[in-house]
Amino acid sequence: MRIAIDAMGGDHAPKSTVEGALAAAREWSDVQIVLVGRKEALEPLMAGAPSNLSIQHAEEVIEAEDEPVKAVRRKKDASMVVAGRMVREGQADAMISAGNTGALMTTGLLVVGRLEGIERPALAPMIPTLDGRGVLALDLGANMDAKPEHLAQYALMGSIYRQKVHGMEKPRVGLLNVGTEAKKGNELTKAAYPLLEETPIAFVGNVEARDILTGACDVLVCDGFAGNILLKTLEGTAGAMFSLLKQEFTKSLKNKLAAAMLMPSLKGLKQTLDYKEHGGAPLLGLSGLVVKGHGSSDGDAIKNAVRQARTALQSRLTESIAEEIGKRMVQS
Amino acid sequence: MRIAIDAMGGDHAPKSTVEGALAAAREWSDVQIVLVGRKEALEPLMAGAPSNLSIQHAEEVIEAEDEPVKAVRRKKDASMVVAGRMVREGQADAMISAGNTGALMTTGLLVVGRLEGIERPALAPMIPTLDGRGVLALDLGANMDAKPEHLAQYALMGSIYRQKVHGMEKPRVGLLNVGTEAKKGNELTKAAYPLLEETPIAFVGNVEARDILTGACDVLVCDGFAGNILLKTLEGTAGAMFSLLKQEFTKSLKNKLAAAMLMPSLKGLKQTLDYKEHGGAPLLGLSGLVVKGHGSSDGDAIKNAVRQARTALQSRLTESIAEEIGKRMVQS
Repeated sequence: MRIAIDAMGGDHAPKSTVEGALAAAREWSDVQIVLVGRKEALEPLMAGAPSNLSIQHAEEVIEAEDEPVKAVRRKKDASMVVAGRMVREGQADAMISAGNTGALMTTGLLVVGRLEGIERPALAPMIPTLDGRGVLALDLGANMDAKPEHLAQYALMGSIYRQKVHGMEKPRVGLLNVGTEAKKGNELTKAAYPLLEETPIAFVGNVEARDILTGACDVLVCDGFAGNILLKTLEGTAGAMFSLLKQEFTKSLKNKLAAAMLMPSLKGLKQTLDYKEHGGAPLLGLSGLVVKGHGSSDGDAIKNAVRQARTALQSRLTESIAEEIGKRMVQS
Repeated sequence: MRIAIDAMGGDHAPKSTVEGALAAAREWSDVQIVLVGRKEALEPLMAGAPSNLSIQHAEEVIEAEDEPVKAVRRKKDASMVVAGRMVREGQADAMISAGNTGALMTTGLLVVGRLEGIERPALAPMIPTLDGRGVLALDLGANMDAKPEHLAQYALMGSIYRQKVHGMEKPRVGLLNVGTEAKKGNELTKAAYPLLEETPIAFVGNVEARDILTGACDVLVCDGFAGNILLKTLEGTAGAMFSLLKQEFTKSLKNKLAAAMLMPSLKGLKQTLDYKEHGGAPLLGLSGLVVKGHGSSDGDAIKNAVRQARTALQSRLTESIAEEIGKRMVQS
């Protein structure tokens, strides 16, 4: 299998992407890794690279501040766009990028292309939970507005992802809502509920935002707007609490001493709740595999994204999604 | 001024409501307080009550598990409904209830009635912020779906509330959104943005969910669905973090000792983030003042809700809202 990495994408690229690619190529000899980007920038970092790691030169780079659609349309030779084109043309089975999120979603949609029958591809990061299982949440920002049928497709794709990539037998799928009763919600969730009941998934009904972290479900479906509010509130609250704790714990010598004793525990807690630690986010519903790494990805994160892509390819994730969506189209 | 208290509403009623009413009546002699509920239950608790505290008998009680609309329609002699009727008929200037939230919103809509020109009354609790100013968020659950014009009305009402009740000169109004740029968002927020720019408020633009706790604005407008996701995620994340902290801090004797030293700080932190501590939530846009106390309100919380209602009445909150909405209707 061949995995293309956008070598220029991410806050620490290309150092992080080359490091991650090197480590992954050494660990998995069944994977051909192609680093896509400026040869001059990459070659000096690649001393001792194994034979399953190569470079595909791409002259341009999409920057974090570039306007996504414009950038993807105009910079046809950007590393991200070239990697996307490799997936579409079958020169790569998957692509990974830690670059501009909007541009990557645009690349997915316009360059890689949608699976037949999928109206909206969805971005599906893992949100950490206290029980360590995590919850795959989608859509987290690819499409701000959703129709009920989109939520049913998200549910199906997320469910297949957790089966194939995480080996879960019957992932529990929940609908993000304001109450657990079936009739609760806004127009969208009220209309989506009966559709989800008919979808071949383990639907556990509505899930309230306050129960996400305690692991109420394995897959959470929502429109991109609500998903963003959920994720950003989680991030903001955890961040605010850590800064309050820090403030309190350095207030007096007594507090400083006590806090020093607890530091390892606090660090562990911070990691548990840091969604950046939980791997790359797949963009589901495309005709090839696209994985989005966090902007701040280091070498380890890139290597983990390769692991994730490898598992997804081995388990034939994209083909399984295509098949299920195909059945759904025949039925309706 | 006369304030009616639904004496039977709330987890600790009627003990909490009577205690709060007694304390409030003693502190503010300019307020006539009427406890609405079962005379037999209230009288034994009211020994030594001052002359500005009285009882209005109401035979029935709306329970927490009652279906809101049905309960308000059928239990015409319930304490909550009677209190609402007193406001509509001018026998009281305001009502307070810590009972069934849905039923209170229904009472507001069907019994007290909307202000002319208001399409959707909004529930507006305070969300705590790290700087202690808090943010008044609306709508937090009265209406799941909203139209752009509703958000503009929320902005106007919330802004007037913070001016009148909290004495803020120019409350900064933010629109809950997925990014700060003007063009970000879903269909609702994109359409609401230009309307908010034209509204006579201090509009500071879009505010991301992660910046709420650090005090990005004084009034936050959103539809009830997104608002619920925000509040419940905040609550869930803070709760999960405290339970993780507790788990870590009791793991070893060393941790236990250190945690004991930090306990006062941790308690303070918990209070800072507990939105239940931040007073009652007004239901804005009604023809009379309605304040919702938290279900777990104790006597102090009820007394604080009376303080809040008193300030709102003194500052002529409802009249000011009616006036501004009236101007808006003339313009459009």
